[in-house]
Amino acid sequence: MKLLYPEFEGFKLNAELMKGFAVTLHAYDPKKQLPDDLLDAEILVTWTNSSDNLKHAASNMKNLKWIQSCAAGPNDVLNAGFDASKIVVCTGSGLHDHTVAEHSLALLLCAARRLDEMKECQLQGEWPGHLGGPQPDRPKGKFTSLRGANVTIWGFGNIAKNLTPMLTTLGATMRGIARSSGVRNGVEVYGDDKLDDILGQTDALVMILPGSDSTKNVLNDLRLRLLPKHAWVVNVGRGTSIDEEALANALEKGDIGGAALDVFVTEPLPESSRLWKTPNTIISPHAAGGRPQDAEQLIVKNLRRFLAGQDLDNRI
Amino acid sequence: MKLLYPEFEGFKLNAELMKGFAVTLHAYDPKKQLPDDLLDAEILVTWTNSSDNLKHAASNMKNLKWIQSCAAGPNDVLNAGFDASKIVVCTGSGLHDHTVAEHSLALLLCAARRLDEMKECQLQGEWPGHLGGPQPDRPKGKFTSLRGANVTIWGFGNIAKNLTPMLTTLGATMRGIARSSGVRNGVEVYGDDKLDDILGQTDALVMILPGSDSTKNVLNDLRLRLLPKHAWVVNVGRGTSIDEEALANALEKGDIGGAALDVFVTEPLPESSRLWKTPNTIISPHAAGGRPQDAEQLIVKNLRRFLAGQDLDNRI
Ligand SMILES: NC(=O)c1ccc[n+]([C@@H]2O[C@H](COP(=O)([O-])OP(=O)(O)OC[C@H]3O[C@@H](n4cnc5c(N)ncnc54)[C@H](OP(=O)(O)O)[C@@H]3O)[C@@H](O)[C@H]2O)c1
Ligand SMILES: NC(=O)c1ccc[n+]([C@@H]2O[C@H](COP(=O)([O-])OP(=O)(O)OC[C@H]3O[C@@H](n4cnc5c(N)ncnc54)[C@H](OP(=O)(O)O)[C@@H]3O)[C@@H](O)[C@H]2O)c1
Repeated sequence: MKLLYPEFEGFKLNAELMKGFAVTLHAYDPKKQLPDDLLDAEILVTWTNSSDNLKHAASNMKNLKWIQSCAAGPNDVLNAGFDASKIVVCTGSGLHDHTVAEHSLALLLCAARRLDEMKECQLQGEWPGHLGGPQPDRPKGKFTSLRGANVTIWGFGNIAKNLTPMLTTLGATMRGIARSSGVRNGVEVYGDDKLDDILGQTDALVMILPGSDSTKNVLNDLRLRLLPKHAWVVNVGRGTSIDEEALANALEKGDIGGAALDVFVTEPLPESSRLWKTPNTIISPHAAGGRPQDAEQLIVKNLRRFLAGQDLDNRI
Repeated sequence: MKLLYPEFEGFKLNAELMKGFAVTLHAYDPKKQLPDDLLDAEILVTWTNSSDNLKHAASNMKNLKWIQSCAAGPNDVLNAGFDASKIVVCTGSGLHDHTVAEHSLALLLCAARRLDEMKECQLQGEWPGHLGGPQPDRPKGKFTSLRGANVTIWGFGNIAKNLTPMLTTLGATMRGIARSSGVRNGVEVYGDDKLDDILGQTDALVMILPGSDSTKNVLNDLRLRLLPKHAWVVNVGRGTSIDEEALANALEKGDIGGAALDVFVTEPLPESSRLWKTPNTIISPHAAGGRPQDAEQLIVKNLRRFLAGQDLDNRI
């Protein structure tokens, strides 16, 4: 039995960590067509494969039974024409938890401590004296620290669970929003029905929602108006969950404190977008994830299950 | 017995938290001369007092026995002419731990996740594609994450102890440098004699040294060259501990990864400084501290000791 795993400059799995099974391991270049002698493989691990590579694999891998993607949302694989009746596809959910959580924290701290405004001043050779020296400690109506801040995570899944201990270590008070309510990882998570109440008490809203019909434009004009005027919005989920025109309006009118955005409806963000120039806006180029961590562990866990005929983790 | 505490817009201690002693509590405006009826006070709490206020107090407070400053380094009080043979001065060390630690973390994450570079691109309407999308996970010879990064704190005192749990939660490997060696708060702290070894293994160097003769220019040309080419330097202690010309050279030559500086030899940073424009440089306007937290607790602790005739905390 053959397992094919991607390898290229900047991405190298540790094959040693995947040995010990009755499977041979073969590295391949995901930007090229698979060589003929690998087309009989049963298992394909994917990461940043070209659409050519995937299309060719879909047409030619007659024994393929399982695709393990390293992407959180493997749309590339799902759109390549693999035979869904024969092939199990698993996502790389979990591989990006730490790195997306770290980026979310970076954006939150950048917002609270005004590092983006400092940079703007620096580029004009100006000392931003108003941001330094003696100043009020966490004044009402401003988001200046995570200590004591009410942080709401909308989309309280795997990434949120990773982000939570970082934020509580810094002294934030956490709340979550998800489809079902209850306590998760020590955090009170509310259903959609409590959303309006909770937005009104939020100093920083971190959106980590998947892209789907049910999450489209959920942060709209009405809900932006529920947020306090000082509240920041951070989005590291999917751009489609925010109505970007409504957000740009809110930023321009000063209805919210600011926005730090890693994802957009259209990426790269089009030149014509108002968000390039709205006040207190931080544009991050879908940089939160994009570097799967510990993929070997997920592959090995699912490989054992696959060989034992058990259900696979992260199956779509 | 009278205790005077400062109060002004943006700074308001909670008097309730200081009651219960045989002492009357009186708020005063630290930017004005003390009114005559308060000049007989025994205890003076200070924060951002004008030099006029302090000079007048030094000449006229004949019963003064104890000054409790809220500043980490109360040079203002020490230079105002109070009679050192009669008056005990205590610093506000500890009141800035959390806020300086948070700012240090913000600077570290900004550096690792390249938020400053993103802002530069944004201001030019450019999508920084090279910083987003699929990319290598923590490549050798780059500082891209705190996870697994070797972070060295030079000046492992109170602020460092507060910063450490934040960094370990994010997965950093911590080391400290101080005058004496040993394990502090679970971190191996080395003496000056091990400095050269440790600099060579450092991905991010956080300097939290006090300003003193012994810390002057300790990060000089020679030591900058010991750092790996990708290492970032963060300074939230005192500007005098870095040789700024040597740092500017290192940044221009690419001998280090970058520098995030909250303190400078001269503040505001003079227009003529090369650091405004050196590559990968973040200029923060002495914004890490400046907002004492929980000052009431320190005042109450020392007030109890003062009334019991015991040694005071943070005594200079
Ligand atoms: N910026 C980046 O580079 C990057 C990288 C990786 C991932 N992402 C994005 O982040 C998303 C989340 O990742 P994850 O691993 O944390 O996913 P996850 O574990 O599946 O969590 C998703 C969460 O969203 C909630 N949710 C889904 N639809 C909802 C709705 N209509 N209303 C309210 N809550 C809803 C779910 O609620 P229940 O728990 O109640 O079902 C769950 O808590 C991914 O889908 C991806 O789009 C972005
Ligand atoms: N940027 C801001 O807004 C801001 C705000 C507050 C404070 N600060 C600065 O931060 C400094 C540190 O504050 P802290 O509360 O952490 O002070 P601290 O508790 O007194 O710690 C100072 C540390 O520096 C070490 N040290 C002193 N001289 C040294 C030398 N010559 N070589 C090596 N190590 C030396 C000490 O070593 P030992 O433990 O071995 O004695 C100690 O670990 C303050 O002095 C102040 O200048 C800046």
